[in-house]
Amino acid sequence: MTETRYDVIGIGNAIVDIIGRCDDPYLTGHGLAKGSMRLVNAAEVEKIYSTMGPATEISGGSAANTIAGIASFGGRAAFIGTVANDDFGKVFSHDIRSIGVAFNAPAVADGAPTSRCLILVTPDGERTMNTFLGVSTSLGETQLDLEMIRAASILYLEGYLFDEPQAKAAFRTALKAAKDAGRKTALTLSDGFCVDRHREEFLELIRSGIDILFANEAEIKSLYQTDSFETAAENARKDAKLAVLTRSGKGSEIHCGDKTISIPAYPVEKVVDTTGAGDLYAAGFLFGYARGLDLEIAGKLASLAASEIISHIGARPSVSLAEFAKQHGLIT
Amino acid sequence: MTETRYDVIGIGNAIVDIIGRCDDPYLTGHGLAKGSMRLVNAAEVEKIYSTMGPATEISGGSAANTIAGIASFGGRAAFIGTVANDDFGKVFSHDIRSIGVAFNAPAVADGAPTSRCLILVTPDGERTMNTFLGVSTSLGETQLDLEMIRAASILYLEGYLFDEPQAKAAFRTALKAAKDAGRKTALTLSDGFCVDRHREEFLELIRSGIDILFANEAEIKSLYQTDSFETAAENARKDAKLAVLTRSGKGSEIHCGDKTISIPAYPVEKVVDTTGAGDLYAAGFLFGYARGLDLEIAGKLASLAASEIISHIGARPSVSLAEFAKQHGLIT
Repeated sequence: MTETRYDVIGIGNAIVDIIGRCDDPYLTGHGLAKGSMRLVNAAEVEKIYSTMGPATEISGGSAANTIAGIASFGGRAAFIGTVANDDFGKVFSHDIRSIGVAFNAPAVADGAPTSRCLILVTPDGERTMNTFLGVSTSLGETQLDLEMIRAASILYLEGYLFDEPQAKAAFRTALKAAKDAGRKTALTLSDGFCVDRHREEFLELIRSGIDILFANEAEIKSLYQTDSFETAAENARKDAKLAVLTRSGKGSEIHCGDKTISIPAYPVEKVVDTTGAGDLYAAGFLFGYARGLDLEIAGKLASLAASEIISHIGARPSVSLAEFAKQHGLIT
Repeated sequence: MTETRYDVIGIGNAIVDIIGRCDDPYLTGHGLAKGSMRLVNAAEVEKIYSTMGPATEISGGSAANTIAGIASFGGRAAFIGTVANDDFGKVFSHDIRSIGVAFNAPAVADGAPTSRCLILVTPDGERTMNTFLGVSTSLGETQLDLEMIRAASILYLEGYLFDEPQAKAAFRTALKAAKDAGRKTALTLSDGFCVDRHREEFLELIRSGIDILFANEAEIKSLYQTDSFETAAENARKDAKLAVLTRSGKGSEIHCGDKTISIPAYPVEKVVDTTGAGDLYAAGFLFGYARGLDLEIAGKLASLAASEIISHIGARPSVSLAEFAKQHGLIT
């Protein structure tokens, strides 16, 4: 096994978040399920955008947020995703590169714009996402930099991308490259509805040898079609080498063979915006894992990073997570 | 004098702010004068953007921020400015319309992009602005909606736009339309360097009958080429019917004929980002003035709005200023 150049390389949708506040009746009035992510077409995104209030634009994308978090912890990180040659594409590229992440993908001029996500944040801090997938879903095998993938300790895949056939093929090619190079692989299920759409293929992918599976309660229950978190966790424990399951305010659990490690949620003064909580949880865990830290410490880094992200608007860290973790005595 | 449809109509640069944090050595290393606004060309904006950290995009523009603030107070507001048909143009148009501001200007396809401002915020909350003027400076007489201007109690002009000859001509046409309709006129000097570039023309404009002049300490000293704030204020009092002068943490002064009203600055827990402090000060004052409130109350509304804007990132209100002013007992 050769030296690694990166701790983690992520593959996911390159997205700019458009974040605005709304009240609960707004969601009901527009038929939006609070806390969910749904894919919208150009007409739907226009309809919501034209009725929502003033917004803030911040780089997002699930795996991209995770990779940004790893860089903020001081990790060596890389990202593969696709943007268009427009303002939002420049914003995404700038933001991820500006924190030291290797991002070499050239902007694609296939006519589709850079992907964007309208995020509506209710007064309780919960986010409801309407994703307009533009050029980011055109990611395919030809855009994979296999040499970069082989050079990373962990390959991290975003379940959301699984909606596109050519992205599925790219995932399989990337996984093979990582495994052949003796690297670890990780997958996040991303969203309960996303799991509904691809249950069998996700299971096949996980059983084919995913080392680290990330899922929240809704996603893991959906994967195993059960109402019981315990039953779902029991199944996940058998299918993945490491199953890392998050339960919002109830904390998280790391299942590793017969062992279960419970990690409490870090207290937060005020939940401002839960966008990116799962993404940043994965960032902390993957950083700790890649650096060979104890699973419990990795879980605490995960929980700490999630607590930082929900205390402000946007899904990218507003402070250095390395400093933040040092202040909490988790790393030196 | 006919009924008014708007309390205030503003004319200014339509800009999207790209806000990131930096430390003081970064400013020094890039030869940037802290707290200033400078105009940069495409190469310069690229150079700064490529070296600055991750950023947040929020609609900005000096007069546009003021107009957004007036709408947030519950005022009837309109804006005239120019955007391109690109992502940032859509962001600007959406944000200002979403708060109820009348903004009818069609996107201009002359090749120049929507204007943007790279804002570097240092740990003390001070902002240093690098404005890349794109299509917003193409504003000329042909884009003025004179009917809208005649329908507003107050016409508010942004000094920054004065850098372009066709915008100067547009200002004069707009002022004539407002005066002929019996409306009030207001001007902000915008920036000390901007005053340096156009001192004589600004003086001529003010003396030709500007009702309300807004300036901060640096701008009014620059206008009258004096190091003494008192001397500058004395001159301003003679030239404008109302001279409203801000002095950051020292509060502000309203000079009206022989009368001087001092307004203290509202205390702020932590100054996060001073971007928009002057713009929102003008918003509070103009709203109060348009509604016929006491000058002292107008000044307090101004000071309160400035205190809200410097307590968070971005130059658009994060709360309803109407509610905020009610909580402080300034309006009912």
